[in-house]
Amino acid sequence: MSFLADLFPTPYYTVVFASERSGKDQAAYEKVAGQIMALAMTQEGYLGVESLSADGRSITVSYWRDEAAIKAWRLHPEHEAAIAKGRKTWYSDFRLRVACVERAYGLGGTES
Amino acid sequence: MSFLADLFPTPYYTVVFASERSGKDQAAYEKVAGQIMALAMTQEGYLGVESLSADGRSITVSYWRDEAAIKAWRLHPEHEAAIAKGRKTWYSDFRLRVACVERAYGLGGTES
Repeated sequence: MSFLADLFPTPYYTVVFASERSGKDQAAYEKVAGQIMALAMTQEGYLGVESLSADGRSITVSYWRDEAAIKAWRLHPEHEAAIAKGRKTWYSDFRLRVACVERAYGLGGTES
Repeated sequence: MSFLADLFPTPYYTVVFASERSGKDQAAYEKVAGQIMALAMTQEGYLGVESLSADGRSITVSYWRDEAAIKAWRLHPEHEAAIAKGRKTWYSDFRLRVACVERAYGLGGTES
């Protein structure tokens, strides 16, 4: 799988999640993070993701058809449980921003 | 400087730039990337940045007051020269997406 997500037709939505981990319970974090990423990819309205981690910091930028898809995923029971654990244990801090993608391009041009 | 950017009052704009490097001329890339990041921070309308690099891949999410600030920065002569070099030499591929941030929160709440 390529690191870069496709150039979907605009408009669509993105969730930019930037996090710093606490260092607590990291084995469980790694396992659950992988499961949640795999589960996200199966959700209605999921388009793609770009994600990097280094030195306990992560940026995960996910792409969604619309805000309704983001809200439904936010309320998925497995995701809700992971969010609660993340807030309480795994993250020392994070920022989550929801934004509407208005235009996009790559090295090769403006549409995939 | 914290890795995480502040929770600015919405709405504002973000540029999500995800890239894979070619491996060519990387010493120059590192030097110019640092100069361009420092220059971006001095631009009118710049709000903040979250950036990570690992294994020749980068995600840089910058935040801007409005689209006009993004367009002005895009046309800055030093930035334009770096973009041209990036397209020609440093990057094997990239995606750039411009999006309007509609809502945001952190571990501690919704506003900084």
